[in-house]
Amino acid sequence: MPVTAAPDLQAIIDRIAEEMAGQADRGKVADYIPGLARVDPKHFGISIATHDGKMYSAGDAAMPFSIQSVSKVFALTIALGKVGDSLWQRVGREPSGNAFNSIVQLEAEHGIPRNPFINAGAIVVADVILAGHQPKEAIGEILRFVRQIAGDDGIMIDDEVAKGEAETGFRNAALANYMRSFGNIHHPVEQVLGVYFHQCALTMTCEQLARAGRYLMLEGQHPDTGFNVISPMRARRINALMMLCGHYDGSGEFAFRVGIPGKSGVGGGIMLIVPGIASIAVWSPGLNDRGNSTLGSLALERLAVATGWSVFNQREPG
Amino acid sequence: MPVTAAPDLQAIIDRIAEEMAGQADRGKVADYIPGLARVDPKHFGISIATHDGKMYSAGDAAMPFSIQSVSKVFALTIALGKVGDSLWQRVGREPSGNAFNSIVQLEAEHGIPRNPFINAGAIVVADVILAGHQPKEAIGEILRFVRQIAGDDGIMIDDEVAKGEAETGFRNAALANYMRSFGNIHHPVEQVLGVYFHQCALTMTCEQLARAGRYLMLEGQHPDTGFNVISPMRARRINALMMLCGHYDGSGEFAFRVGIPGKSGVGGGIMLIVPGIASIAVWSPGLNDRGNSTLGSLALERLAVATGWSVFNQREPG
Amino acid sequence: MPVTAAPDLQAIIDRIAEEMAGQADRGKVADYIPGLARVDPKHFGISIATHDGKMYSAGDAAMPFSIQSVSKVFALTIALGKVGDSLWQRVGREPSGNAFNSIVQLEAEHGIPRNPFINAGAIVVADVILAGHQPKEAIGEILRFVRQIAGDDGIMIDDEVAKGEAETGFRNAALANYMRSFGNIHHPVEQVLGVYFHQCALTMTCEQLARAGRYLMLEGQHPDTGFNVISPMRARRINALMMLCGHYDGSGEFAFRVGIPGKSGVGGGIMLIVPGIASIAVWSPGLNDRGNSTLGSLALERLAVATGWSVFNQREPG
Amino acid sequence: MPVTAAPDLQAIIDRIAEEMAGQADRGKVADYIPGLARVDPKHFGISIATHDGKMYSAGDAAMPFSIQSVSKVFALTIALGKVGDSLWQRVGREPSGNAFNSIVQLEAEHGIPRNPFINAGAIVVADVILAGHQPKEAIGEILRFVRQIAGDDGIMIDDEVAKGEAETGFRNAALANYMRSFGNIHHPVEQVLGVYFHQCALTMTCEQLARAGRYLMLEGQHPDTGFNVISPMRARRINALMMLCGHYDGSGEFAFRVGIPGKSGVGGGIMLIVPGIASIAVWSPGLNDRGNSTLGSLALERLAVATGWSVFNQREPG
Repeated sequence: MPVTAAPDLQAIIDRIAEEMAGQADRGKVADYIPGLARVDPKHFGISIATHDGKMYSAGDAAMPFSIQSVSKVFALTIALGKVGDSLWQRVGREPSGNAFNSIVQLEAEHGIPRNPFINAGAIVVADVILAGHQPKEAIGEILRFVRQIAGDDGIMIDDEVAKGEAETGFRNAALANYMRSFGNIHHPVEQVLGVYFHQCALTMTCEQLARAGRYLMLEGQHPDTGFNVISPMRARRINALMMLCGHYDGSGEFAFRVGIPGKSGVGGGIMLIVPGIASIAVWSPGLNDRGNSTLGSLALERLAVATGWSVFNQREPG
Repeated sequence: MPVTAAPDLQAIIDRIAEEMAGQADRGKVADYIPGLARVDPKHFGISIATHDGKMYSAGDAAMPFSIQSVSKVFALTIALGKVGDSLWQRVGREPSGNAFNSIVQLEAEHGIPRNPFINAGAIVVADVILAGHQPKEAIGEILRFVRQIAGDDGIMIDDEVAKGEAETGFRNAALANYMRSFGNIHHPVEQVLGVYFHQCALTMTCEQLARAGRYLMLEGQHPDTGFNVISPMRARRINALMMLCGHYDGSGEFAFRVGIPGKSGVGGGIMLIVPGIASIAVWSPGLNDRGNSTLGSLALERLAVATGWSVFNQREPG
Repeated sequence: MPVTAAPDLQAIIDRIAEEMAGQADRGKVADYIPGLARVDPKHFGISIATHDGKMYSAGDAAMPFSIQSVSKVFALTIALGKVGDSLWQRVGREPSGNAFNSIVQLEAEHGIPRNPFINAGAIVVADVILAGHQPKEAIGEILRFVRQIAGDDGIMIDDEVAKGEAETGFRNAALANYMRSFGNIHHPVEQVLGVYFHQCALTMTCEQLARAGRYLMLEGQHPDTGFNVISPMRARRINALMMLCGHYDGSGEFAFRVGIPGKSGVGGGIMLIVPGIASIAVWSPGLNDRGNSTLGSLALERLAVATGWSVFNQREPG
Repeated sequence: MPVTAAPDLQAIIDRIAEEMAGQADRGKVADYIPGLARVDPKHFGISIATHDGKMYSAGDAAMPFSIQSVSKVFALTIALGKVGDSLWQRVGREPSGNAFNSIVQLEAEHGIPRNPFINAGAIVVADVILAGHQPKEAIGEILRFVRQIAGDDGIMIDDEVAKGEAETGFRNAALANYMRSFGNIHHPVEQVLGVYFHQCALTMTCEQLARAGRYLMLEGQHPDTGFNVISPMRARRINALMMLCGHYDGSGEFAFRVGIPGKSGVGGGIMLIVPGIASIAVWSPGLNDRGNSTLGSLALERLAVATGWSVFNQREPG
């Protein structure tokens, strides 16, 4: 099936939102911090920002949620802007093959996390962003960046969520201290985690998140300003990383079923990039056993079928 | 960069072949069996079979080599044809995050290999193909299948290589016995390994291999006969699996640099599928430290840049 | 409490045997082969051979059982006699810290098993004994050795048990093949396992086993002949190895509770050595969750309390 | 060889000290903190406190050194006094089979460290001692305890060493945070580590350390006061734990060569307990590749041979 010519996106996502409303099995909302635990699992929202500047939304697309690990994509973009490919000396680019918070691989690989989308890797990225900054400044830089790429100054960080993460984040503190013991964290652990926890506490709507992802659809170019957020090659490579490592230990399953690069977060959000075509955000807070949004994954599988957007679909030859 | 309209493929691969001839660092030829060890590292060949039935070749494209693990793609196709999606109860679909012959993950995951492209997974696939057969018949079925999809009855299995594998394949015997202890191998280990070692000993030229891969470029359809080798969805999913797991513990690096699904073998061959556009085979026997062809990987990276064929490139919207 | 002067051993073990008869929780009989599965969990036997040539028995002390891993002590003694301390280049002397059949440690330590009392280590020991022999001869050598140290030509190997092990021993076959891939097994795996499985199938009574252990009580000297089975230093070191590694991943617990070197087997037997004082065998087929005889362990704990024989007890200063 | 009747201990240790002075290979002094790194590897000291109240010393037996992990024995004694056997629900009693600071086992065993003598286990013990205390009080309690059992109020904690540990102890911070994520650390990590690092910074001479160990030689009884520091059964069990786990991943080797329970520290000290006979301290700062004192281990091996004090030696039957 070739890429569908001009699918009626609004009709497709309206139908999907309706189907999702009828789903009984929604998984389990993350409950390790109050700010996530009290979210109603009934929510489902989806937004699609297309290459031609249009926006399609359905369901709770205007309701803010905690983007959590989706933020790792934006943080990676900032870090690559700061230190370029030297980043890859401190973080790998391979799928992890273990649960997202595993510490075992770190021992075997001497403190170098496998990729920037597992927690350990994202903590190294936060350490890179922190360089030359006070923690508050680094957090401010991340917030400004996300507001800019989304073109929306209303995006906020939820301090209560950040505080909740800090109070329960002993495993992340273990990871950070462990990497510091190998010399792969350069700043005080509390500061690095402060940046990381605030980054994860970014609160966005599906519309904002879909808009924020547009530069990755457009080979790094910001659609509102024409400014290059990142080079075309780096944009492609971030998409490749999302394809291989974007959904914790369910990345293979997601590639198998959806076939489009994306990044999920424990708040139930998933950002999906169809290169050249669309930037998509979906949100439903219930998680499957791999920690990815149950309905979000299902909705995206149906969207991929309806649109033919899998990168593994036949493409029109040039 | 959009998919290049009608790139001059012959010129591109001629240039790449020339560049490869000048490369000093060719890695190390696999030397664990004589049949592989005596191959001259100087070889380099490449062939591209395009969607419109053309074939472009350069270098040693007509020289036969041992396809080794590239055969896992064909075996997976046969096994899916035999038992369908029930196969996935015995083999996972996630990247392994470990060296290609690691036995640790098997212990943690109770004898279920992570995916069909690591050795353990391919041995389970061989066990599936063996069901209802004598080993010779199963080997015959694999050989017939590959001859048919390549449209070439001259393809052979190198018995000396198969014998060499059997004589040194203690780690594979360990994997097979270990999985049998969990009940995930159903036939006598010697028989299963016999099938597996013969499958790995398939000897093909780049041209034959590029032709054999065409059904994966064409959503499962055989271009010579119009027959569906496999359903479109399964073809896409095999491509997704190759993207995530096709190059051992270098799959992330390959996706990052090349961005096209492919499968490598320790004989120095790589098969690459650009959905809807091209089926590619490259061969150069020297391997990098992840066990993938050094020049093969480099050549494919340059080909991806020259053609814009990365699946993460912008696509022409429909 | 100093070593009890002349405890009334017969009274002690009669009382213990009576207490054991009343125990409800006997654990679970090993059921992976028919030859073990059909043993009645009601059995309990104990024998003590003392330094002064006396023998005390209670319960089913005259009933033969499969000594299984207890045989590893005798095989180690033979192998040290053949190759001396060079054995320690192929097997370690550290506790394993993992389940007794774990393959993970082997991967981390390049095919060198941690000690001769885990399965992998015992398979290397069997490989050493096999050197220069046909498998049947090696098995004969082991049988002759055990008959000699026990002073009893009635000791037999249970061929049905050996056959059962071979038919289900896929994990041992995995271990052996895996070590062979590192070069740490020198003979064909089937032959090595043949020796190993027959050694494990040695069938002995408590009385025979207590007699067989006397050389380890007497610093290597055979009490019947005065012949040195092994040097005093090696006898002490085998005892040290039993103390640290004799009960799989329950060795710490056993040392903590009993404080006497011993070796357990999955058939429910335990051999215990009190240096200079006694060689003890206990048998009860039900196993605890670490794979050691439930009643056997409990009986020995009570015996240690009643006699003061723990090596960690105060000793009379010289 | 039975326990030597009245060996001339002074002559034996004088000879050993002389032999040690001539040893070229002294290993490597721990250099991760300045307080340890600047110690001269030339030092060697040994002291033996015997059951009859005598003290024998040779070499630098009056020179203070950092006892480091030897302190884990004293901390365990205090913790058992506080919470009794309930401690064993939070710490195991099995050898670890991994490097002393490994975090892998903790992941596999859900935050329960294998024994109280690996760092993770000792941090749990410190958490137990901290209960109901301010950190300073807990540190004070440990110091008072050690002064009391040694009968020497001159024993101090080296604050510079404690500070150095805190500044470089990222791996211990990782362990503590990791266990806290499993709920097995109850107090703030900084406080627990504060107690642990000060405990490790106890500074003692060989004479003081040999005197401090006397209660373990005497089944828990304090020789100066007759007071029971700990019950006889617990004293025996601490000795058993030292035998199985006292020397990191070199415990098997030490049991094999020396055959006497002991505990080593990275400062180069080893405390050794011969039940009923002697409490021994040896010190030489150079470490072998397992982290145990090179000369200390060698000296104790020679002492064991000269005295026949191995617990695996023949004992005089009662």
